Amino acid sequence: MKPSSEDDAAPAGGPWEECFEAAVQLALRAGQIIKKALSEEKRVSTKTSAADLVTETDHLVEDLIISELQKRFPSHRFIAEESAAAGAKCVLTPSPTWIVDPIDGTCNFVHRFPTVAVSIGFAVDQELEFGVIYHCTEERLYTGRRGRGAFCNGQRLRVSGETDISKALVLTEIGPRRDPATLKLFLSNMERLLHAKAHGVRVIGSSTLALCHLASGAADAYYQFGLHCWDLAAATVIIREAGGIVMDTSGGPLDLMSCRVVAAGTREMATLIAQALQTINYGRDDEK
Amino acid sequence: MKPSSEDDAAPAGGPWEECFEAAVQLALRAGQIIKKALSEEKRVSTKTSAADLVTETDHLVEDLIISELQKRFPSHRFIAEESAAAGAKCVLTPSPTWIVDPIDGTCNFVHRFPTVAVSIGFAVDQELEFGVIYHCTEERLYTGRRGRGAFCNGQRLRVSGETDISKALVLTEIGPRRDPATLKLFLSNMERLLHAKAHGVRVIGSSTLALCHLASGAADAYYQFGLHCWDLAAATVIIREAGGIVMDTSGGPLDLMSCRVVAAGTREMATLIAQALQTINYGRDDEK
Repeated sequence: MKPSSEDDAAPAGGPWEECFEAAVQLALRAGQIIKKALSEEKRVSTKTSAADLVTETDHLVEDLIISELQKRFPSHRFIAEESAAAGAKCVLTPSPTWIVDPIDGTCNFVHRFPTVAVSIGFAVDQELEFGVIYHCTEERLYTGRRGRGAFCNGQRLRVSGETDISKALVLTEIGPRRDPATLKLFLSNMERLLHAKAHGVRVIGSSTLALCHLASGAADAYYQFGLHCWDLAAATVIIREAGGIVMDTSGGPLDLMSCRVVAAGTREMATLIAQALQTINYGRDDEK
Repeated sequence: MKPSSEDDAAPAGGPWEECFEAAVQLALRAGQIIKKALSEEKRVSTKTSAADLVTETDHLVEDLIISELQKRFPSHRFIAEESAAAGAKCVLTPSPTWIVDPIDGTCNFVHRFPTVAVSIGFAVDQELEFGVIYHCTEERLYTGRRGRGAFCNGQRLRVSGETDISKALVLTEIGPRRDPATLKLFLSNMERLLHAKAHGVRVIGSSTLALCHLASGAADAYYQFGLHCWDLAAATVIIREAGGIVMDTSGGPLDLMSCRVVAAGTREMATLIAQALQTINYGRDDEK
């Protein structure tokens, strides 16, 4: 049995309560490790490109989160950034599955640019149940549970109701691939939104935190090509529970494994953004 | 007599101490007004374009800062964003001059995107003496005094020592002009830095706070065309006192009125960035 979607007044209870509480506690613990590392570390290796960096702290935090969850929930499955980079398959089955990004914004982390977060999502029957994101340098804990609302440090989140691109603040990220053809498409998409007179386009270096800004109503839309299911899982629940839309850049339903997304406060805005974009094909997480 | 540049151990004293203390107090008061307004207001007018918005709070905060300073320092001169927009001349004379941006990041402010700051700079004999920047939503107070170091909430700031673009995090802003030719140049400059394999380019919507990230070593370089002296004055002192370089995009010395800047942790990095850029001509603040 899953928590009822009618049960939105109840802040606690339900069959995944223990999992949700574990996610919150681990996100906070991971955040402490990241904060400490930000004052110490600058050892880095590259994963696929200069833009896609990985640090010892990514591994340390991912190992902590997964080993603790495995102890408590031995039948559950895991999809996580560093495990995937090491060759683990990203397949979302009906089993209870944790989808973890130990440090979203690793390039920021390496530079000590204080826009980094831990992201822990949880799905059952291939449906996202809850998401927990901790912006550790600012001590902001974002949570969303299906049917129960989205919150930042206990304060309810609501998306913006904007439907007009010419009044919109739009967020995006450059993405990991930096070959000339991909960069041209990335810049051309930004140009299209600026020609459509968006108030501004922001690039903050963390998809997860950009999506949290969207959930809080501080931005009107977000799009990206080249992000992964672990960037998106937790934030998707938070945005939906804040009243927003998360969908495929084709305008169809979100496909968590498709490495592309449009999110917005309103369906009108999401559709307009999706129509403005040229596709950048990054393949699929579940075919790598 | 001005504070001695040798006097870098002394946290207090010197002939501009009273002015510096007034700037800190006013930045903190202004920050409280902005924080309150962020929870209330969304009334907006446009100045020159959709991207260049102005709110009642900008006017309120600027009036507060200038009227208080005029009372205490009646012989001083002022250059401030909203006064300039209303037609006041921006001329830096040898007189003690306050250079004020009441809300840097107005577009962010309008959207409640929490990257906004108050910026108060002070120059004497056309030389910048101190700068005070308050990032009110995160309660970070950045200060720099000529010859006395730069600090954030009491912690000393040091720039990054990076000299290699391919290891750099670079910050920029889109700028207020959005005609197709200007946008092409803006995007082409971003493309050049990404081709040079910069780790990332970030656009956070506040020049002042981007420059504070640079001063704190969280980014390696910053460039922009279309910013104004009030975006730059306070941050310039903070960066220089954190050990960094602020210069013209031509590679020559900074001209506060030229609406263009490159800043970096090292002269090598600033020079490489300057060489990579195509100029976007925004005219001069003192010829408008």
